[in-house]
Amino acid sequence: MKTYLDCIPCFFKQALVAAREAGADEVQQKKILDEISQEIPKISFSLSPAYMSRIVYGTIRKITGVTDPFKKEKIKSNKLALKLYPQLKKRIKSTKEPLKEAIKLAILGNTIDFGTGLAFDLEKELNSKGHFPVFDYEEFKNALKENAEILYIADNCGETVFDRLLIEEISKEVIYAVRSAPIINDATIEDAKFCGLNKIARVISSGSPISGTPIELCSQEFLSFFNQSPFIISKGQGNFETLSEANRPVFFLLKAKCAIVAKELNCKIGDMILKYHQK
Amino acid sequence: MKTYLDCIPCFFKQALVAAREAGADEVQQKKILDEISQEIPKISFSLSPAYMSRIVYGTIRKITGVTDPFKKEKIKSNKLALKLYPQLKKRIKSTKEPLKEAIKLAILGNTIDFGTGLAFDLEKELNSKGHFPVFDYEEFKNALKENAEILYIADNCGETVFDRLLIEEISKEVIYAVRSAPIINDATIEDAKFCGLNKIARVISSGSPISGTPIELCSQEFLSFFNQSPFIISKGQGNFETLSEANRPVFFLLKAKCAIVAKELNCKIGDMILKYHQK
Repeated sequence: MKTYLDCIPCFFKQALVAAREAGADEVQQKKILDEISQEIPKISFSLSPAYMSRIVYGTIRKITGVTDPFKKEKIKSNKLALKLYPQLKKRIKSTKEPLKEAIKLAILGNTIDFGTGLAFDLEKELNSKGHFPVFDYEEFKNALKENAEILYIADNCGETVFDRLLIEEISKEVIYAVRSAPIINDATIEDAKFCGLNKIARVISSGSPISGTPIELCSQEFLSFFNQSPFIISKGQGNFETLSEANRPVFFLLKAKCAIVAKELNCKIGDMILKYHQK
Repeated sequence: MKTYLDCIPCFFKQALVAAREAGADEVQQKKILDEISQEIPKISFSLSPAYMSRIVYGTIRKITGVTDPFKKEKIKSNKLALKLYPQLKKRIKSTKEPLKEAIKLAILGNTIDFGTGLAFDLEKELNSKGHFPVFDYEEFKNALKENAEILYIADNCGETVFDRLLIEEISKEVIYAVRSAPIINDATIEDAKFCGLNKIARVISSGSPISGTPIELCSQEFLSFFNQSPFIISKGQGNFETLSEANRPVFFLLKAKCAIVAKELNCKIGDMILKYHQK
């Protein structure tokens, strides 16, 4: 997915939220926005919006010295999700179709996000049960029958616990790929381990330092799985933005959080999506 | 009211909406945003956000040659409001307190706005009757008793018809001040006349070419009224932004349309306000 002009206001909004989270004072905040504004004419609109996270977070890092602005929020999300784990497990087991419920919960878990600059209410979202206008469940079940191994590309902290519930339900060999370094509230190896993913999957770094999975920035290890795996699960907007045109079959599980992504998916903001992308 | 860092994303959003309205193609839209991004480091944050409208619309004018991007929408708003006039007049007359209803309608009329980049639904808003958490009605009635002349500073096209209804209800001598040139969907002398304001008030230009009333850009004619009038009515956000610290007593009638203005007014986005500002 390419970057749209409509993404520009959002870059500034995200930068401001993250700068404040990093503890930047008013002068530093202004400096960060000023520096980002100088990058606007240089943006390559053929690249996905996720690339801009590198510039935004690089600028925040340079000016504040903070490499992980959402560290506290990330830890909080991981702990909250782990606390919810037993009741979510029960919820899955109490339904007629546990797999379906586990998929839905994995998508609902994508509600946890500090990247869009919008507030979220995870518990409210879990109670609402969500709206799933695109739900390629049959294709997912078929892929599950046919394949023994899954490449699962993670998104956010806390959401990892929801991924764990789905992985436990799927009961297959899973490669769980996370970011190579802190960016927004995306999960790293440390977060995946904290949430117990290493007990049920092989946790690897995708090599991506941005809030998505751009092939050209990924590690050889990740690419060896990505280029061969016939069953890939991709969580969240950043991964969708960078993989929506991938030459691989991918199941996208995400909540559409902005107008541009919603337009790409032909859905509304807030919709929950399970979309099968054929290569 | 000063400009906040949070206004920056909004400037880009507004610029994009207006550029598209001006018929700018993708290349022109990008050029407009690129040029505006170069202005960001130069913003004087002690000035009100309304000043930025000059840069945004100046850039659009330079690149597209269009001086009045919302011309069609302005004509449409004027016509729609004139069509609603008879039923609104009836609505005012059918209430126990026609003045109160006319004030409320004048505020509800501020819903018509193309500046914030948000969609609006005037008829829905009129039916909802609005939420008025700040409503300095007693002060307004007292000012009305004590003064024979009113300076009424207009805001948007179409909204002018709602102003007309209030002015008719007030039945005093009114100086009705509008912008000196087209900016966003703000009313000019032409619009005021089209909506019949010249029949019930003396219509003048404030001299302001921006979406607000910055004293230092106003005409001597306007200032002679502004500096003497003990009863000033100011409509909308742009006028509030530029006059919130004025050394004159002002009744602000507006709908709070953004988080920053809502914070200044200690209310929520969407709230309808009648606020008495003492000098």
